[in-house]
Amino acid sequence: MTTSPQRAAGTAALEEIREKARRLRIESMMATTAAGSGHPTSCLSAAELVAATFFHAMKFDPTDPNSIEGDRFVLSKGHAAPVLYAALAEAGVFPVSRLLTLRQFSSELEGHPTPRVPGVDAATGSLGQGLSVGAGLALGARVRKSNARVYVLLGDGEMAEGNVWEAAAFAAHWKLDNLTALVDVNGLGQSERTMYRHDTEVYRRKFEAQGWQAETVDGHDLAAIMEVLDRAKGASGMPQAIVARTEKGFPISFLRDKDGWHGKALSKEQLEMAIAELGAAADIPADPGRSYERKTLPKPADFPPPAAPAYQMGQMVATREAYGTALKKLAAVNAGIVALDGDVKNSTFAEVLGEADPSRLFQGYIAEQNIVSVAVGMAAQGLVPFVATFACFLTRAYDQVRMAAISRSSINLCGSHCGVSIGEDGPSQMGLEDLAMFRAIPGATVLYPSDAVATERLTESAARREGICYIRTARPKLPVIYGNEEKFPVPGFKLLRQSPQDRVAVIGAGVTVYEALKAYDELKAKGVLARVIDLYCLKPIDTAALGDQVRATGGRAVTVEDHYPEGGLGEAVMAALAAAGVPLTSVRQIAVRGVPHSGKPDELLDAFGISARHIVSTIEKM
Amino acid sequence: MTTSPQRAAGTAALEEIREKARRLRIESMMATTAAGSGHPTSCLSAAELVAATFFHAMKFDPTDPNSIEGDRFVLSKGHAAPVLYAALAEAGVFPVSRLLTLRQFSSELEGHPTPRVPGVDAATGSLGQGLSVGAGLALGARVRKSNARVYVLLGDGEMAEGNVWEAAAFAAHWKLDNLTALVDVNGLGQSERTMYRHDTEVYRRKFEAQGWQAETVDGHDLAAIMEVLDRAKGASGMPQAIVARTEKGFPISFLRDKDGWHGKALSKEQLEMAIAELGAAADIPADPGRSYERKTLPKPADFPPPAAPAYQMGQMVATREAYGTALKKLAAVNAGIVALDGDVKNSTFAEVLGEADPSRLFQGYIAEQNIVSVAVGMAAQGLVPFVATFACFLTRAYDQVRMAAISRSSINLCGSHCGVSIGEDGPSQMGLEDLAMFRAIPGATVLYPSDAVATERLTESAARREGICYIRTARPKLPVIYGNEEKFPVPGFKLLRQSPQDRVAVIGAGVTVYEALKAYDELKAKGVLARVIDLYCLKPIDTAALGDQVRATGGRAVTVEDHYPEGGLGEAVMAALAAAGVPLTSVRQIAVRGVPHSGKPDELLDAFGISARHIVSTIEKM
Repeated sequence: MTTSPQRAAGTAALEEIREKARRLRIESMMATTAAGSGHPTSCLSAAELVAATFFHAMKFDPTDPNSIEGDRFVLSKGHAAPVLYAALAEAGVFPVSRLLTLRQFSSELEGHPTPRVPGVDAATGSLGQGLSVGAGLALGARVRKSNARVYVLLGDGEMAEGNVWEAAAFAAHWKLDNLTALVDVNGLGQSERTMYRHDTEVYRRKFEAQGWQAETVDGHDLAAIMEVLDRAKGASGMPQAIVARTEKGFPISFLRDKDGWHGKALSKEQLEMAIAELGAAADIPADPGRSYERKTLPKPADFPPPAAPAYQMGQMVATREAYGTALKKLAAVNAGIVALDGDVKNSTFAEVLGEADPSRLFQGYIAEQNIVSVAVGMAAQGLVPFVATFACFLTRAYDQVRMAAISRSSINLCGSHCGVSIGEDGPSQMGLEDLAMFRAIPGATVLYPSDAVATERLTESAARREGICYIRTARPKLPVIYGNEEKFPVPGFKLLRQSPQDRVAVIGAGVTVYEALKAYDELKAKGVLARVIDLYCLKPIDTAALGDQVRATGGRAVTVEDHYPEGGLGEAVMAALAAAGVPLTSVRQIAVRGVPHSGKPDELLDAFGISARHIVSTIEKM
Repeated sequence: MTTSPQRAAGTAALEEIREKARRLRIESMMATTAAGSGHPTSCLSAAELVAATFFHAMKFDPTDPNSIEGDRFVLSKGHAAPVLYAALAEAGVFPVSRLLTLRQFSSELEGHPTPRVPGVDAATGSLGQGLSVGAGLALGARVRKSNARVYVLLGDGEMAEGNVWEAAAFAAHWKLDNLTALVDVNGLGQSERTMYRHDTEVYRRKFEAQGWQAETVDGHDLAAIMEVLDRAKGASGMPQAIVARTEKGFPISFLRDKDGWHGKALSKEQLEMAIAELGAAADIPADPGRSYERKTLPKPADFPPPAAPAYQMGQMVATREAYGTALKKLAAVNAGIVALDGDVKNSTFAEVLGEADPSRLFQGYIAEQNIVSVAVGMAAQGLVPFVATFACFLTRAYDQVRMAAISRSSINLCGSHCGVSIGEDGPSQMGLEDLAMFRAIPGATVLYPSDAVATERLTESAARREGICYIRTARPKLPVIYGNEEKFPVPGFKLLRQSPQDRVAVIGAGVTVYEALKAYDELKAKGVLARVIDLYCLKPIDTAALGDQVRATGGRAVTVEDHYPEGGLGEAVMAALAAAGVPLTSVRQIAVRGVPHSGKPDELLDAFGISARHIVSTIEKM
């Protein structure tokens, strides 16, 4: 077992690595049989690829397996988790005995890899995302001036995912020659043979068409794999693909290349037969039960405050524009800040950072899935990524955001052009489900600034917070309503209008705050007093403080949002009030109902029911 | 102007088509200038491609532009909507005068195409989805035994979207030789030059690597385009790609190949200059204001009831398994039912249909984005598609589902393996945000059956309903609790336990209904009476009827769901009760909080707080 703190690459001999591959096979089968579930045959096809990568190619410190100096390994085919865990154990990250706790409630060795396990940088198991994470790790290493390499093991089934090809194009464009993809072409998917079966040439051609250095290899010929891994290290200016022909279940006679064995653990009898075919069994002691769970993920160092907002009250500024200004100011005080664009930097205003420092803004073109997972990889190298595109186009990357949360990644996403207030471009360009989408991400922070000052302050909060942070910005220019010194704690909200006689609380955010203020004036003229709340932070919510506000209005509240009714601000408020134990006399939810269409912003706010007029009439009917 | 009801392909002469291209340019610029916004330069690059396709290649009836016999055109680069509208007008679908209403609130000619416009089969504008829709139209034509062809116009910017390459692989696999893709390589994205600029060879190589017949062409050489379109028709067994080198803004001197002109309308003065360069202006009369809005989309004919459920009370059946049975029974009575799989048919049980009739189940491999948009295309050919994968993997296709709703498409999606009840596979495989995601789709129906009988009945409802229908199924086997004759109206719920003394309503669905029933027994033993509600339909909700139930318990309710707290069952119930005007004394929401991990199903239900024990203790504390 390799125990030197920083093992040099290429030191293990062929026979030693062959024995590692044999042990990876046995341990993968033993672990899944002990668990009673899992994917042993998907581990068997990859044993030589993993052994050669870990014990021949990689430079890797088992006591610090996620260090900036060390090479990284991403198991994109996450269902082969047991072979990764076995490799980490054989490399000395944790004892081999731990492998037999696979999939148990008390174990960090879950059914699919997560960063709870030392040596894992991102959760995988939703297929086709690992190459993007790997590209982010490779780009992050370059940004941090590390000469570390990144290896990504993909399955052939997942090559059908478009995300893989977004990553491939990105890696070639950015000339990530420190990135090597290994494709385990075992020809068998979950439910039938894959689209291309064992035709490794198709994959090679696809990688070459993307501008990669690509070669095919016999994935069970260890010496050949080692040679091709050596050649990959010599590549200059191009990422490298190693397309390996393998057999699922190899070399076990009753498993190899057999359909119907996906995701099935062997019985004890089958396990014994399989081990007998491989030679002597591994002698694995009972696990002492100590956890090896990784407690913290790379976090950016604390940084000094950025330059304060510098607006005049009433100045007309779009929050999307203030986001660009905020990014530029943050980058000036935090060297870890980087931004990713999906060819909309002139709309999201990420270009403000790019103009100030082109080296901090990375163009990902129109491929939202990839830029989100690239951000996960960059964050795992200790950077603080901000990804911005239209709010509606982040729906394209919902699975990648979901996996980023399971990855415990700290990435920031900005969605511009929210709601019907964008106007003429029509519903395909309107973010109307983004709040629902991001609120349902565990541990996420959901920010929705109403003016430029709030945007700058909240973008700073995002850069400081852990987990997934979402910032919702809007297209129209709106007046600045907060002083430059105003603070925006998270969680928190702003009470913009109030009196002891308030009969109802009107709760909005973004453009609807301005509608609520107009409604306030109209209602006041009619003798009806309302309090107006700017709920700039939708998750978390200070439930007790918000509850107090609505208690003060006798449990009467109106929520108003430029979003569909489901999962957005209104439901967030109701859930918060319920949690706060506030008895609700009457709550009315104003939101966009039905698919909107093109028109002028004001026309649409009114036609789709979220303008001041609708707030007034709703309150009058309560 | 072509006015014959069914125009034969290839009848217009070169000069006639050249004049069409000139008119498309002028009309695109006039319309965007009249609107004051839009993407004229993206229209100009495509004028010859669109003119040659519409007026040379396509067989098309302007009085019935979405007929099963006619060829179809999908504008994947949806921001070039004006050139599509101009082509439809020049073909006689509506008068040219209508073009000048572009982007107005009262016009069906929105900023990006939607099926409100006759001749449009799917909304576009979220890039990279059109080729999947086109593949669905082409496959749908084949299923319906039509020899119609499908043309898809893509921009080069959107070729970065992985979805395009999922579609390309799918189309080649299914040998869709009735599908032609035209790529408008103008080399300019929104914010800068594209990744490959004018390198048309890269795109050709990528298509060839996917198994397409591909050639490059000068996209402003009309005769050459017509020839290559003719050759495409002769292809056998392969889809065809026409990669055209164009210039954005061509041929206007101050626009062509200029950065900084994306999404900008010309001023009136610029418009005059541009038209002068093109020769005489088009004489467009004032629009009389008549709407040409398409009112209905293709709907399947009504069909006889499928075979009734045939279970025994208490029989252990997973809802995912009943879904497969339901599909098979529905297919037997409705020839339009088709299913799409993402290589998980043995997990979702879509394989039950495939085993009964292999011609009805289409393998899309692991490419969720593509199968959703293929379904939209198949629905536009009058079929009734069911797409099934793990619930969590539908997050991969959220943007495609969003666009399907804007497309007014009637497609059905089944998400299996919801929640922590899946057990050992861990969080990457658990659907815990799917209810939030689908509830926020406008007009969607969200169904969550608790047993096998409910699953069969609700799957039938999905097949009969318009719009997006989502069916959430679960992994574990659970006892049948409904009789085979039970009906499940939509909207609706089932009252499983009740008495006049009920102190609280417990509202769950799926696995939590069983936990609620256990909790009921425990509470009853302690003298506390609760009513138990199975909310099998989360959207729409019969708010009045549900409100009555909670009024009867004095405004006290507990919701419990195998889902994150945000946007799921709990918030749906609160919003419904608020809408029903029920004063809420006390509502408690039980849901999965934080990222779960691997473990046994029962262990996880308890550890993540949604088991009977938690329901009991929550109610005891109320």
